[in-house]
Amino acid sequence: MRTLLYRYVPALKSKIYTKSQGFHKSVGVLQRLAIEEPKAPFIQTEIPGPKSRTLFNELSTVQNSLAVQFFVDYDKSYGNYLVDVDGNVMLDMFTQIASIPIGYNHPSLVETIKKEENLSTFINRPALAVFPPGDWLKRLQSSLLAVAPPGLNEIQTMACGACSIEHGMKAMFIAYQRKKRGGQPPSKEELQTCITGVAPGCPDLCILSFKNAFHGRTMGALAITHSKPVHKLDFPVPYWPMASFPILKYPLEENVRENQAEERRCLEEVEDLIVSWNKSGRPVVGCVIEPMQAEGGDNFASAEFFQGLQEICSKHDVSLAIDEVQTGCGSTGKFWAHEHFNLKESPDIVAFSKKMLTGGFYYKEHYRPHEAQRIFNTWVGDPSKVILLEAVVKVIKEQNLLARVNDTGKCLFGGLQGFQTQYPNLLSRLRGLGCYGSIDLPSMEIRDKVISKLRAKGVNTGGCGEKSIRFRPTLTLEKHHVDIFLDKFNSVLHEVDSSQEKSERAKA
Amino acid sequence: MRTLLYRYVPALKSKIYTKSQGFHKSVGVLQRLAIEEPKAPFIQTEIPGPKSRTLFNELSTVQNSLAVQFFVDYDKSYGNYLVDVDGNVMLDMFTQIASIPIGYNHPSLVETIKKEENLSTFINRPALAVFPPGDWLKRLQSSLLAVAPPGLNEIQTMACGACSIEHGMKAMFIAYQRKKRGGQPPSKEELQTCITGVAPGCPDLCILSFKNAFHGRTMGALAITHSKPVHKLDFPVPYWPMASFPILKYPLEENVRENQAEERRCLEEVEDLIVSWNKSGRPVVGCVIEPMQAEGGDNFASAEFFQGLQEICSKHDVSLAIDEVQTGCGSTGKFWAHEHFNLKESPDIVAFSKKMLTGGFYYKEHYRPHEAQRIFNTWVGDPSKVILLEAVVKVIKEQNLLARVNDTGKCLFGGLQGFQTQYPNLLSRLRGLGCYGSIDLPSMEIRDKVISKLRAKGVNTGGCGEKSIRFRPTLTLEKHHVDIFLDKFNSVLHEVDSSQEKSERAKA
Repeated sequence: MRTLLYRYVPALKSKIYTKSQGFHKSVGVLQRLAIEEPKAPFIQTEIPGPKSRTLFNELSTVQNSLAVQFFVDYDKSYGNYLVDVDGNVMLDMFTQIASIPIGYNHPSLVETIKKEENLSTFINRPALAVFPPGDWLKRLQSSLLAVAPPGLNEIQTMACGACSIEHGMKAMFIAYQRKKRGGQPPSKEELQTCITGVAPGCPDLCILSFKNAFHGRTMGALAITHSKPVHKLDFPVPYWPMASFPILKYPLEENVRENQAEERRCLEEVEDLIVSWNKSGRPVVGCVIEPMQAEGGDNFASAEFFQGLQEICSKHDVSLAIDEVQTGCGSTGKFWAHEHFNLKESPDIVAFSKKMLTGGFYYKEHYRPHEAQRIFNTWVGDPSKVILLEAVVKVIKEQNLLARVNDTGKCLFGGLQGFQTQYPNLLSRLRGLGCYGSIDLPSMEIRDKVISKLRAKGVNTGGCGEKSIRFRPTLTLEKHHVDIFLDKFNSVLHEVDSSQEKSERAKA
Repeated sequence: MRTLLYRYVPALKSKIYTKSQGFHKSVGVLQRLAIEEPKAPFIQTEIPGPKSRTLFNELSTVQNSLAVQFFVDYDKSYGNYLVDVDGNVMLDMFTQIASIPIGYNHPSLVETIKKEENLSTFINRPALAVFPPGDWLKRLQSSLLAVAPPGLNEIQTMACGACSIEHGMKAMFIAYQRKKRGGQPPSKEELQTCITGVAPGCPDLCILSFKNAFHGRTMGALAITHSKPVHKLDFPVPYWPMASFPILKYPLEENVRENQAEERRCLEEVEDLIVSWNKSGRPVVGCVIEPMQAEGGDNFASAEFFQGLQEICSKHDVSLAIDEVQTGCGSTGKFWAHEHFNLKESPDIVAFSKKMLTGGFYYKEHYRPHEAQRIFNTWVGDPSKVILLEAVVKVIKEQNLLARVNDTGKCLFGGLQGFQTQYPNLLSRLRGLGCYGSIDLPSMEIRDKVISKLRAKGVNTGGCGEKSIRFRPTLTLEKHHVDIFLDKFNSVLHEVDSSQEKSERAKA
């Protein structure tokens, strides 16, 4: 059925195709999209291969390209497989830093972009908050609102994750100051001083965040980001309170008491910081937290920790915002990761981006600005991304992908659990929910070596924290993909383990 | 020729069309895009009309919608004409806050999105800095690099205007600190302290900006924004130096000496601020300025002012960034507005967004970070926008649209000049370059009344500053559009003038 969607005839071009490695190569100029998923990885060159290296050198003449890992042929990529420009076919467990929801070139997305009724949305980007398209609410209802976190009924779209966090924080500041004014309009002095950026118009408020947190790279988002020097070094970022995020010991069942103590310690720190900053005249207006810290090392905390955090926030009138940019859209087995926490009430704000294809945040009515253009910019998002999300949400629901994520996740983390027992010198701290999680290697050096060897065998993964490998597959990953991954991973671990042993024997 | 592109047959649907007001209405479910530009405005209801008002009430249940002016039928909009959901056809002189370069549903853009070879770019958004598509450099070369400001050969893409400014500032901070370190790596203390957000890792540096400036609504961009309370009120925005931007007297030829004095005063303020902030231990690293202040009231300054500014920056080792988010992409008659200034050398950084369809900034090699992932985020822009920009640049070049902008602008501002003489009690401070400019009304109230009456006659414009109307047409505006606009404007001015006179006579 899937392939039927693609069986149109390329006009005026050669119709001769050679089938190879699961995609069609056009003999004409017209490049055709892949039409089915490869059966397995297929590696022809080292990675990056010669074509990638040439492109890297060329691109480096016009920009810093040092983050490039390899160049991709997105036409040929399909499903869970990424194909690079050298023809290497990789099972993708990293998916563009966790931002591809249902796989490359998914037929539903191809269909969406080809629909006559969608065309004008892709080419006429509106000033969405001023001149929205007539079907805007309908589109929101069948995409973002159809998957809104329980208890959150209002929605603000934005273009990217950092902007979602920035404007989510602004919504908290606005609500805080409005409450403080008790219904009075801002004073003349406030209106005047805010232009230059001083109090009382720009009051000295702050947001509490956590060690190892990552929330984005614009100035406000950086103020609550505390994971790696590369993000903040050299920038005059606001200094705001930072509490410890629990660093749990694994396996969890063997460290119950220590972990409870660790989480208690962190919660006490949160409360102490709120009290002391409030006293010092820089009130803590909000708290922003990831449900699982991603960039900072895939640090998980318990449901009880988040329940306790909400209680403290509530007690001190601090708004609670959950940053679901990396965790949202189903990869933990629930649509929103914070749904695992059974919070007493919904968080005040939930920010998203990446796999949601559009940025934005959900908010409680209390956080709706009362005036026009307070949370605003020219584009405030992009309806064409919402149309694509609409298709993604439909696929997730129709194919019951959350159930699949949970099933596949059991195989993935079950297999990894076995390896952790098998390679105790290499693997530790396995943690995950659904298909979202990480495992630690002994050092950054060994972690990077494992990632590189995995890639050479046809599996693309990414690192996080100091020495973790993070798994961020699409929601369409299946057991047979996991089998392939586990097989490759096992063989890499075996190689690395042997060479470690050898070098240790040599030392001894 | 244009219409040929659209002459495919809608599959399985009725082929009966009724032609009405310049667009085709399908009798089937399949909604067709407009295929030609209306000949004139056509107003059927008040604006917002009944359908817009219903949609407004519905949308307001899920978000603050107070900025909405009316809902748009983007399928039926074409060229310089915007069609609302009530069937009102308006000549658009505001174009989504200056962000539509070559008109609605331009055939080249329709063709671009329908091209088989472009499809995968629209549905597989990459982590662009890590896994770029194979044709990325080629695409950059035929879009952003093909129109790079003279002297600027490097390019960083971003998703929106605010992010472009934020990361442009970060590039200046990085270059400043690198130079200060004299080739040494950052110290251990710097690496540690930057995580919490304090010096020396996050040094107390600042950026100088101007009164009435607007650069965006994230925290760093807000620190250099000083136009209206709605942007900054309640937010703990960094306090950085703000200099006066010249407020020139018009007509320019009658106020040469005062205006020179005003610009000298502003430049002295800039230099004084740099010296005093440097002394106070918060060094001024960069200066960000719009070539014409837009949101803040369409304030123009002379080429000499900008030359003087560059000289001062250069003398004090302050980087100069030009924010061309609203002015870039040809609307002033040159591709980049700062090209009007004959600067001794190119600015250090030029930021863009809006009509460029993608955000980003050009930079001198000195501002290229030496490490990976310093200027970075998951998406760093969107290749699908660059593909659309490629088509836009092609149209601008092939149709020599910059020449057209200059020709059309002469008619537009020539006509407005006549009205300014004809209605001296209503109009003043006419200013513009190319088709980009403004005229002042006596008060915000009268300005808003004029905008509303113009809309009722079928011309969509926008305000800026306190009492200006700004003109931001597409680059495809022609003399016959200007004739229509001038005719409607004249009739509105006549009405308002008469009613003003009447009310003044009544008072007397």
